Formats: sequence, structure tokens, C-alpha cells
Amino acid sequence: MKILKTAVLPKGFKANGMSCGIKKSGKPDLALFCSLVPAIAALKYTTNQLPAAPVILNNQHIKLAKEFHAIIANSGNANAFCGKYGLRVAQVMAQGAAKVLGVRKENIFVASTGIIAKKLPVEKIQKALPKLAAGLSHDGIALGKVAIKTTDKFTKEISVKFNLGNKTITICGVAKGAGMISPKMATLLCFIFTDANITQGGLKRSLNEAAEHSFNRITVDGCMSTNDTVICLANKMAANALIDNGTSYKIFTNALKTVCLALAKMMVADGEGATKLITLKVSQARSASEAKKIALAIANSNLFKTAMYASSKNIIGRIVASVGQAGFKIKEEKLKIKYTDLKKKEVSVEVAVGRGKQSSVVYTSDLTHEYVKINAEYN
Amino acid sequence: MKILKTAVLPKGFKANGMSCGIKKSGKPDLALFCSLVPAIAALKYTTNQLPAAPVILNNQHIKLAKEFHAIIANSGNANAFCGKYGLRVAQVMAQGAAKVLGVRKENIFVASTGIIAKKLPVEKIQKALPKLAAGLSHDGIALGKVAIKTTDKFTKEISVKFNLGNKTITICGVAKGAGMISPKMATLLCFIFTDANITQGGLKRSLNEAAEHSFNRITVDGCMSTNDTVICLANKMAANALIDNGTSYKIFTNALKTVCLALAKMMVADGEGATKLITLKVSQARSASEAKKIALAIANSNLFKTAMYASSKNIIGRIVASVGQAGFKIKEEKLKIKYTDLKKKEVSVEVAVGRGKQSSVVYTSDLTHEYVKINAEYN
Repeated sequence: MKILKTAVLPKGFKANGMSCGIKKSGKPDLALFCSLVPAIAALKYTTNQLPAAPVILNNQHIKLAKEFHAIIANSGNANAFCGKYGLRVAQVMAQGAAKVLGVRKENIFVASTGIIAKKLPVEKIQKALPKLAAGLSHDGIALGKVAIKTTDKFTKEISVKFNLGNKTITICGVAKGAGMISPKMATLLCFIFTDANITQGGLKRSLNEAAEHSFNRITVDGCMSTNDTVICLANKMAANALIDNGTSYKIFTNALKTVCLALAKMMVADGEGATKLITLKVSQARSASEAKKIALAIANSNLFKTAMYASSKNIIGRIVASVGQAGFKIKEEKLKIKYTDLKKKEVSVEVAVGRGKQSSVVYTSDLTHEYVKINAEYN
Repeated sequence: MKILKTAVLPKGFKANGMSCGIKKSGKPDLALFCSLVPAIAALKYTTNQLPAAPVILNNQHIKLAKEFHAIIANSGNANAFCGKYGLRVAQVMAQGAAKVLGVRKENIFVASTGIIAKKLPVEKIQKALPKLAAGLSHDGIALGKVAIKTTDKFTKEISVKFNLGNKTITICGVAKGAGMISPKMATLLCFIFTDANITQGGLKRSLNEAAEHSFNRITVDGCMSTNDTVICLANKMAANALIDNGTSYKIFTNALKTVCLALAKMMVADGEGATKLITLKVSQARSASEAKKIALAIANSNLFKTAMYASSKNIIGRIVASVGQAGFKIKEEKLKIKYTDLKKKEVSVEVAVGRGKQSSVVYTSDLTHEYVKINAEYN
């Protein structure tokens, strides 16, 4: 498997990005990603009980259609908590993209990210769509990936290439993250494109597996967004033998995991105000789920995160308090805590709880002055 | 009921506080609170599964003894996660206090607060105990309440006086709080003294009721301490007709609630770095417990807390995301959010979720630069 640090679209995909005027700063805020041929899709989205309008719409489209053509995405406004107006806006975005691409609206996915509970000026998107579509190109991913950013300091992107038989398959992922990241599904927005020939069921299983060990294992501030969405489009243009199970499924899933985990780690490393990427392993638990619960109790503790920011040796006490808060009976004398150099940018922590043989890994960031600054001054 | 803003001990109680050298700063760090006659006790403590040694010891003493004489408390070191050494230290503290007071060690409660996982130099306490006991006085509460402070900016104290029959009963509470405050029991340390004549069962029920609507409704950073303890001593010296049930129980419990709620609110107002005391009511829930869960999801959201710090109108979006994260099915169009002037020091927020008729109130603080500073620079 060859790993590229930039987004390189697979065969048959095009993209574009531009500024349509949603962001007052004039920065790019509208992106279109499309496949020239119909693609199958797998979708994962927030479990937040007040999901944004695009999440509701995508959930309808995945049930209505079997093949998809494009994702229309904007940044600067989340189109969330705007009631019927918001749903209409999401529909207008899908209709607009469908029209310029000559497909049906249910073949389109919609994604929005940015401020919540503020009306999205959808007429700006409608006006920009013809130009956006006219400028679609294979290299246009360079513009598309920038137009989905909000407070992200850097673009999140990765591509992998691997062979199946005598065919080369590409998987390319772009994402935006930063704050408000907590598991129970996902990250903010993540779009994955592949030219693999894979069954609908295979793609769904593969994305579930990959997301569980990547997007569902990261937390920045424990807050769950109303908009979190992962969309994976597969357009079969690699012309490989159909993947469903067995070895080819394992090879594909391994590659997809690589893409998802790399993007997830980038999100944590670029967590709002983050100065550290912390890999936190809880071992010796009775089950993987128990290990994950304990790991998240530590990862979401503000006291743990501020001590990490300070590279403080007082970290031990804060880990102990968090482990105890998770609610499992743990014997103090069996609890073992190890960590690498706290002053480094990447820190690994292992907490052995002495209850069993299972383990889980989560990724988190530190809590810093900059986090407070970004979130107190936003809007 | 007469409310006094300072701690005035009831009949038959004495206290003292001093510096014994645990804190490097030389600030007071050792306190003794005692009743001249045997007192009954009610106890509430952390549900953290890795409780500190004093919590373990107190839980033994409340089972071994029916009457109690004193609380020996230190600040600067939590005596937590120090294994057998820690348990021995707590025992030595109880034994030392028992010796200077001429009572048995199981008649003593022990409390510690401060840094976790660091050995407490108990010989300093042993050396100081004779002087501490010799200086006990009714007005010594003024020294005792200061010696339990850690990062507290002000002492937490209140007294209430009320009549039952022709007798006057006093309830006096002192507490220390600041960071690491999250419900599931309690606050850091809170000691309540009363001269009421009340049954053991009555005192226990009354403290449970009062704590549920005060200490269990506050959160500063969602982190649960290993040391949280509330101890209430009642020494019967008011000579009122025995309280157990009925009107006198209601009057007593109402007074105890006043004490607990006032102390709990002081803890939030002095939450580490806090600039605001936020009263958060969730109404129209199906049950009070559901309302409390939703309220805590909001109160513990870092995004909500930073927006509060900034007095930002973007608060709506952050409340919506937190309500959705709580996991209950809520109809967007039924969700109603109201709040008072965000720029004031005390802010009230009401979130009606349109599911039923029950409500709950919790109290929280904002998340500020100062919180990060205090917790990143501690130790």
C-alpha cells in the first residue's frame, strides 16, 4: 500500500471549491465533489438527537436512491436548528447541485458546517452553483478540500493506493474537524472517494469497521456536533474483481482504516487550541467496551487535559480520579499507569486496570488557553 | 429562620485551625472541629471508585460507632492513591485526634484535600495536634474554615438559626470547593454542625434530601473528586423535642437545605476561574431524572461554558447541540430556550424540551482562561 499525504482523487472523480459569500471573511465556503459515473455510497452520521437539516436529508436520500453522484458542501453555517427553513435549504442545495449536474436530487448528498441556529443564505449557493460545476476537475480537490474548513488550521487529507489482482485501487479522504469532536459517531465532515468495485454491503461493513476504530475513538472536547457526517462514495472505475468478503475485503478494509485513522488523528492534532496528540490505551479491562469507557472518562476530563497542556506530573492523580469516575470496581494496587515524555507533541499513555485482558485505544488533545480563546471569541 | 453569612458554631462545638507545614506556602492546612458531647452523624461521600483513604476510613467508622466527637481535616494533600501507606496515614490522623481529645479513634472522622498520589507527611500533623487541640474554642471556627481551603478564593460558610417550640436550633456549615466538582455525590469537603436533637434516621434522611438538591446539582468541570465528603454532626444541645418526622422534620430539613444550597452555590461561584454562576433549569421533561440528565449535558459542555464566558449569543446553538447529545428524542420545534442578560454575573437559563411536565435545576460556572491557568499551573 502506497500512502500519499495529499488528496489525489481516484479515477472518475472531480471536485471544485470557491467562495460564495457565506463567510464574511471571503474565504472559500462552497465545495462540490462528484463522480462522473454513478457511485454506491455508505454513510455514517451523528447520533445527536437534534441533527442538522443536511443529516436528515442525507438519511432520506440513502433510503431513496441506490446510486449517487455528488456531495455539495458548505462551511460557515451548519444549517442546524433552523426548523422547516433549514430542511428547505438542504433540499434547495440538493436540487441545485442535481440541476447543474443533470441528475436527480436524491442522488446528491448535502453537508454543512459552521455556526448553529443561524439561517443559511442559500441564494448565494444557488447563484454560485453553475460556476462551481463548470470548474469541476480532477485536480479541483485542492480547492474543494479548502472550502470545507472552519476553524481548522490545516487541511485534513490522505490518499492510499493498493493493488487487487492487476488493478490499482485508490482511496482518497478529505475532512474538516477542529472542535466539537466526540465519539458516538464521528467527526465533523469527512468525504471518502474510491474507485473500488465493491458491493453495497461490503462498503457499509468496511466503513463501519474503519469508523469504529478511528472517528469513534477521538475526542477533543466531549461535545457532539449536530452535523457530523462521513460519506464514502465508490464508483467501480478501478474495474477490479467485485469485493464483498474474504481476502480482497480485508485488503480494502485495511486501506480504508488507514485513511480513516490518519484523518481522525489529524482532527485531534488540530483540535481547537490543541498542542498535543495523546494516544490513550486502557488495558486489562474485562471487555473492549469497558476499556473504551474508561479511556473516554480520562480523555474527556478537563483536569487531565489541562495537566497534559502543562506537561505536569500531577497527571497521575488526574488519571486516577477519572478512572474512578468511570464507575468500574478497580483495585487501587492493581492500577498501573505509564506514559512517555510529557513534554513531547505526541504523548502515549497506558493505563492497566487489572480486571481482565481486553484493551481499547482512544485519541485526544490537551485543553489550552487557545481552546478557550477560540470558543469564547467565535462569532 | 435567621440566616447569617458567617460560620457561627452551635452550642457545644469548638474548632481550631493552624499551619502544620503541609503547604509549602506556609498557609493554614490543618483544622479540628469537635463537639464537647457525643454527636450523631450523617455522612455522604464520593461515588468515585478509587476513593481516597479518609473516605474509606470514615465509611468504616460510621459502621463501627454510633457517636462521634470530631473531624480532623487537612488541606494541601488529598491522601489519595497512596495505597496502604495512605490508609495508615488516615488511621494515624484519627488516632492522633482521638488521643488529644480523650476519645476512641472510631469516634473521629478524617478529611483530606489537595494533591492526589503524593505521600502525606503525617508526622507534621502528629506534631501539631496537641497545640491544635489546646487552642480549640467556640470562635475557633474562624481559623478552622480557613485551614480547609485549597484553590478557594473565599471561605464558604453560612449559619441559620430557627425555633422549634421554645428552643433555638443552629445549623452551621463550612466548606471548601473550587475545582473538580461534579454531581453523583457531592462537593469536595463540607462540614455541617448542628445542636439539634434529632434521630439518626431523621438526620440521614434530611441530609440525603438536602444534598440531592444542592451538592448533587452542581458541576464545575464534570470531574469527580476521590475525596468528596459531607459530614453532618448533631449534638442535641439545643434540647428541643426529638425530631424524627412530621412538621419539626420539615422545618429542620428546610433549614438544612438552605445551608447546603447556599454552600453549593458558593462552590460554583468560586469554581476554578469562574466569572459566572449559571442557574440552569430544564423543564417539560418526562421525569425529573431526565430533566437532570439533559441539564447536566448542557452544564458540562465546554462549548456552552466558553460561550457563557464570552456572553455570546451563539449560546443557543451550543445548548441545542448539548440537548441533542443527551440522547432523548426531542422535537426541534418544541424546544424553547430562554435566558437572562448574559453579561451579568448571575445568569439563569431555562430550556423547555416539550416532552412532559417535570423539571430539574442544576448550577454551573463558565469555562475561562483562568480555569486553564489554575489547572495547568497547579503543582
